[in-house]
Formats: sequence, structure tokens, C-alpha cells
Amino acid sequence: MTTASAERTTPGSLRETVSATRDEVLAAAARSRSAAADLALLSSASKDRALQTMAAALRSQVAAILSANALDVAAAEAAGTPESLIDRLRLTEARVEGMATGLEDLLALPDPVGQTVRGSVLPNGLSLQQIRVPLGVVAIIYEARPNVTVDATGIALKSGNAALLRGSASAWESNRVLVDILSAAAVSAGLPADTVQLVPGTDRESVSHLMTARGLVDVIIPRGGAGLIKAVVEGSTVPVIETGVGNVHVFVDASADLEMAEAIVLNAKTRRPSVCNAAETLLVHTDVAETAIPRLVGALGAAGVTVHADDRTAALVAGTVPVTAADYDTEFLSLDIAVKVVDSLDDAIAHIRAHSTGHTEAIVTGDLAAARAFTARVDAAVVVVNASTAFTDGGEFGFGAEIGISTQKLHARGPMGLAELTSTKYVLNGTGQIRSAS
Amino acid sequence: MTTASAERTTPGSLRETVSATRDEVLAAAARSRSAAADLALLSSASKDRALQTMAAALRSQVAAILSANALDVAAAEAAGTPESLIDRLRLTEARVEGMATGLEDLLALPDPVGQTVRGSVLPNGLSLQQIRVPLGVVAIIYEARPNVTVDATGIALKSGNAALLRGSASAWESNRVLVDILSAAAVSAGLPADTVQLVPGTDRESVSHLMTARGLVDVIIPRGGAGLIKAVVEGSTVPVIETGVGNVHVFVDASADLEMAEAIVLNAKTRRPSVCNAAETLLVHTDVAETAIPRLVGALGAAGVTVHADDRTAALVAGTVPVTAADYDTEFLSLDIAVKVVDSLDDAIAHIRAHSTGHTEAIVTGDLAAARAFTARVDAAVVVVNASTAFTDGGEFGFGAEIGISTQKLHARGPMGLAELTSTKYVLNGTGQIRSAS
Repeated sequence: MTTASAERTTPGSLRETVSATRDEVLAAAARSRSAAADLALLSSASKDRALQTMAAALRSQVAAILSANALDVAAAEAAGTPESLIDRLRLTEARVEGMATGLEDLLALPDPVGQTVRGSVLPNGLSLQQIRVPLGVVAIIYEARPNVTVDATGIALKSGNAALLRGSASAWESNRVLVDILSAAAVSAGLPADTVQLVPGTDRESVSHLMTARGLVDVIIPRGGAGLIKAVVEGSTVPVIETGVGNVHVFVDASADLEMAEAIVLNAKTRRPSVCNAAETLLVHTDVAETAIPRLVGALGAAGVTVHADDRTAALVAGTVPVTAADYDTEFLSLDIAVKVVDSLDDAIAHIRAHSTGHTEAIVTGDLAAARAFTARVDAAVVVVNASTAFTDGGEFGFGAEIGISTQKLHARGPMGLAELTSTKYVLNGTGQIRSAS
Repeated sequence: MTTASAERTTPGSLRETVSATRDEVLAAAARSRSAAADLALLSSASKDRALQTMAAALRSQVAAILSANALDVAAAEAAGTPESLIDRLRLTEARVEGMATGLEDLLALPDPVGQTVRGSVLPNGLSLQQIRVPLGVVAIIYEARPNVTVDATGIALKSGNAALLRGSASAWESNRVLVDILSAAAVSAGLPADTVQLVPGTDRESVSHLMTARGLVDVIIPRGGAGLIKAVVEGSTVPVIETGVGNVHVFVDASADLEMAEAIVLNAKTRRPSVCNAAETLLVHTDVAETAIPRLVGALGAAGVTVHADDRTAALVAGTVPVTAADYDTEFLSLDIAVKVVDSLDDAIAHIRAHSTGHTEAIVTGDLAAARAFTARVDAAVVVVNASTAFTDGGEFGFGAEIGISTQKLHARGPMGLAELTSTKYVLNGTGQIRSAS
């Protein structure tokens, strides 16, 4: 679940879109809001029972899921969609089983709702507690990956929220069947039908309507290409949690162990090039460039990576293509990497400051002072010393579930687990206290 | 400091505005950003020294502050500004001393920056720490209260942030002098001059420019009337923390101790009617209305409060004015209160759900089940049982300092202290770990 959620593609319009009016979208959001009021009061046991019911329902209706999915896949094939995208869209019996297991995995996680974050008795005898409460209605805009429909529903439910999902047009049939199954399972477990809902449209306007449903939707989490995320951030009056765009750097310092550096750079770039924690630029300290560049670039080349090299790199090794200024700001999401020789740790940090998207930044170094300076001065959700950037992941961090990776500073930063889908409420218990005039 | 910050008024345009181009505002934001990078790395001792230097500078330059302030006050008087607003604008030697003391009060508070929120060693030996870091550039838009200029600078600095302040046009001269003094003090303590800056304009456009300085400004905290807050929330591409609008309810349940209810209602309404935690609507359970309404409305009337009564209330007591539908959604901020008789706890909660701004809601009850239901089902930053709503305040909560009271669910909810002006960063320390392919 966690790996998949870190991955993303630009959503395509692979089939006819379904239109929804503003009133229809707002009515759906209002139903979600009403459901959220009930969900907020559920015991952990009730939520867990519903998750189990949902998992069982997915298993028992796998045939219906696969036939709906076949329609989406056929439409995508007819539209000439690349196989890599179709692979993400396609469901199999094993993948449906994976979704069901993902829901069951949530049972073992602690319920964040009702946890006391802090508590004290004030001097006047008032008891003050800050308690975790659900956010309410969580809207997620995502790409053509039907597994997200199930994952997001499960994570939202476990944290007491209603899920309002706006999936890709190309997964419409799959998402409809999945949401019908999940919603019916919710009802049979005694929960509201609107525990999970699809936004009733797949056109661009439906996103606009959702973005302005302030007061009905508590947060929008856009997952997808940079263009989608930018549009939502700029247009939304509902609070947004920005996710995922990762222009990730690895800096190989003068004191780096080059064997370690090679393993880390290769893993960070080639393990899964399409995920947001994959490295996009390699920076190499000039003091070690003469040995490091041939070794690292050679290893990358052997792994099929196209190296976009600056002049100093190109002077040290053959087989590269010239880097462009735009490359340093490009999240390739492919077997491409920009490589640049820098004169110092300061230069590396300055380059990262200028080009980072605040996702994950790594240094390979043997120098404690350099490690400390890098972690203090690089402004990103995750700063890594001597390890692969691929570890930026809720599962790897031990969160058990992940709804996305926030690249913003407000509310949540980095992998978002169950607690990140909650807010808090202060509860003040008194015995008639009033406040003095001064 | 904390009491004042909960108070607010609709900012007036009491003098000629100062214009700033978009480029000028963005250039100021870029300078703040650069300063923020330095401030983030400061030790607590350095920040505390700067706060002390600022306090001393305010004391030594009180004459300059008062003569600049006299210009603002004179302009406001010439414009016919109400005395209550002029009183907020006016500085005295005692008030300047209060600002200096406010800065010194911050010395005793723990520095949130660098605190480890959570930490663990992952199964693969990676050390994972989530560490508090400053937000970066904190922009605050506020009313004609020069003390906020100093308070906000201090709180931002203590939490490692640069303050970018957009005060009211009517406090322009006061704010300029204050910021000059604070900035010079920062420099003499070895900090950047742009530790604190005024947005170089007081026109409406300067707010628009600030709102779209995404990437330069990390958060905007608008403080002021509902109109200003709405405009910022709807127009900003920079993340916003909504503050302050409090349509606060007190529900007197059937089982309430009426002596306690009277004291709480009076305190909540009349202690400081202009602050956001003041009560605006009183709901009374029908079972106790016959005795409670005459007692509570009588006490309110005797305290000079105009009671906007529904028909059932008016039938029980004389001397009220008829309530309008709009009254239930009005934050009077004056000696006015809406009063309504409700048939049940459920009706009270339903009314609050329909009209609450999510600030503070209170119940007076002797019934444990009612208290539990109210705290669970009312969705607000602060839910109060048997105490005055006036306790919603960072100072009362023991936070020591407060930048405002958030009425939104994301990032911060309720009184915001130093920790609420921070984000976090994950730091991952390894020994060459790479992630397996699966």
C-alpha cells in the first residue's frame, strides 16, 4: 500500500468524461459531511469491523470488480494508452486480494482518534485536554490506480473521516464498482453509506467544484502530476495538502565512501524511477570528482540510465548527454539523471536550495560536520545521511499506512499516516470557573 | 500579550494608504526568506539575546515611538475614528513597557526548534528522527494595534521564523518606527536586519501581492474582521491559518446549576465583549427556561446587554428586542446577545452545528452524559464544560505566548503558541542502507 501511494503519473483523459454540476458535487460533499459527523463518534471496534466487512466484500465480489476493470482497460487500450499506465490501471485477482489485505492491515494500527495529545490541570482547577479528532471530509484527487480507491477509503475510515474520492476518468468503471462495494459493506457494518463516495464527475469542472466546497470539505489531497497539484493549490479555497513532487538530490561529498555512494546512487535512481522519492540530480564534490564521476556515471550508464552531464562531468567521462538548465528542475521519473560537479558543501546546499521541491535530499559523507550542516541547512521533508532516498515512505518509516507524502510545511510534512488525517480539539472541564477582568 | 492578541476589530482606512508594487512586496518577501534561512540555525541563546536587545531598544527609544504614534493618533482623530479604536492604536509609556516585558516573557519559554517530536531506529538500522524546524517566513496581517507588531516579531523570532508584517494603514508611522527599532536591535545582536520587516505598503493590493508570494512566504495569518479573513482564505495561494472569528454559544442545559450558569453567561458575554471568545448566543433548555430565562436575561439586562430574544424567550421576560435570523450568525463583538429556547440537547447541538464558527462552544450542565455528548459531538477548537468561554486564550492555556486562535482544523486548532509556528523535518541517518526492490 505504501509503496504504491508514493508513485504517481500524470492522469490522462483516456475516455469520455462524466460531467457533474456544481450542485451535484456540493450535494455529494454535504452527504460526506453528514456521514463524517457519525464516523467521528465511532469506536475503534466499529471501524475495524467495517474494515473487515469491506475486505470480505472485495473478496466475494472479485468477479464484478474484474469485469468492470476490464471495461476501463479496454477503453485505455483502444485509446492507445502506454502499457506502463495500463499496468497500473489493470486489476487481477491477486491485486484485489492485495487491496483486501491492505484494509486488514489497518486493524493492527492504533486508532488516532480520541488520543490525548496533551493534558494538564490549570492553576484555576480547569482540566484542559487536547484530543485527536478526525479532520472530517477528506477529498483525494488521484490518478488511474483503482487500488488508491480502496487504500484511501481504509485510511480515511480508520482515522474517522469520510472519503470523497475523485479518481481518474480512465478508472471510472472500476472505481464505481469498488465504491459501491465499499459503501454497501459500510452499511452492512452499521456505518453510513456515504462513508465513501465518488465525486459524481470526472470532468475538470468537477475538480473546480470540489476545490471550492469550503465548509463541506475539510482537506483536499491532490495526488498526481505537478500540473494538477499546482492547479489545486492555486485554485482551492479548501485547505490543501500538497504531495509528492520530488526533485530529489544526492550529494556525494569529498569524504564519501565511494562504494557506499555507488550503491546509494544506483538504488535511489534505478529502484523505481517513477516514484517521487527517486533521485533526479547527482551532485559530486570537486575534490573527489576525478574518481567518483567515472565510477558513479559508469555504474548509472551500465544500469541503463541516461546521464545529463554538466561540462565538468562530461570532461571526466564519456557517454553522457549535455545537461540543460531545465534538467535541474525536472522530475524525470525515468531512467535519466542530471549530474553536476560542485566546489563545496556550500555550493551543493545552494544548488539544492535553488532546485529542491522539499521532498527528500541526501548526502553521502564520512564527515560529521558536513552531515550536521547538511541536515540543518537543507529544507526538505526528509533529509538523509548515508542511505538511499528510497526510504522516504510511510511503510519504511513504520507508519503502517500512508495517504501520500506531503511536501509542504503546514499540518503534515513527509509521509502522512493516520495521525496526519486528524486534527485536535481542546476540551476544558470546569466547576463554574469564570475569568477575572484583567 | 495573550489577551490582546485574541482581540480584534475591522481595520479601518483612517489615512492615506502607502502603495507598493508586486515587485516591491515580492522583494521584501525574498529578503525575509533569506533572513529565515539564517534564523532557523540560531541557538536559543542567540534568539534570547536578540529578544533582550529588542526589549532594551524599545525602552530606550520610547520617545521616538510615542511621537510617531502621536501622528497616527492625530490622523485617526481627524478622520473621526471612534475612541474605542483610537484607544487600541494609542501608545503610552506604560504600553511600550508592556511590549518590552512581553518580549522578555518569551525568554522563559522553551525553544521549540530542534525538539525531537518522535524518534526510532528502524529494523534496518536507520535512525529516524522527526525534528521541529521553523516554518520560515510568517506573514501576519493585522489591525491597528501597534503592540501586535512587537508581539508577533517576538513570537516569530523565538520560534526561528522571520516576521513579515502587514499592519493597518492607520498605524503606519507607529509600525515603521517599531520595526526600525526591532530590526536595528536584531542587527546589533548579530541577527539579520530582515528578521522583521513591514510589507512596504498599506493598500489592498499589497495584501494581494503578499497572498500570492507562494514559495517566498510559508504561511499567512490574517487577523481582523471576517471580511479580511474570507478574502485572504479565498485569494491566497500561500497556506493560510484562519483565526479568530468566534460565533460563540453557551448552552444552559436542563440540569444546569443556575447560579453557575448566571456567572458563566455574564462573564462570557460582558468580560470583554470585543474579543473573539465572548459569547454571542445563549441557548436555554426548555425544561428550565421558565426559571432560567428571567434570571439570565435579567442579569444580562442589568449588565447593559441588549438581549435579542426568540418568541419563547420574549414570552418569559420583558425588555428584549426580537431576534432576527441573521443575529444567529452575527459575531456582535458588543453588548448584544441572541437568546433562544431549545427543546433538547440534540436541538442545542444542531443549532450550534448550523451556526458555529468552530471557535469555542460551552455547556453548563450537571448531567455527565450531556457533558460527554456535547464535547464529543460539537465540532470546535475548544469545547467547554461548566466554565466561561473567556478561557480560550493561549495565556490561560499555559502557552506563555499566542499569535492568534486558529479556527481551522489543519496544522493548528485553537490558541497557537510557539510550537504552532513550527513544522517538522525527518532526519534519516544511515550507514549505507539501500532499499530492496520489492
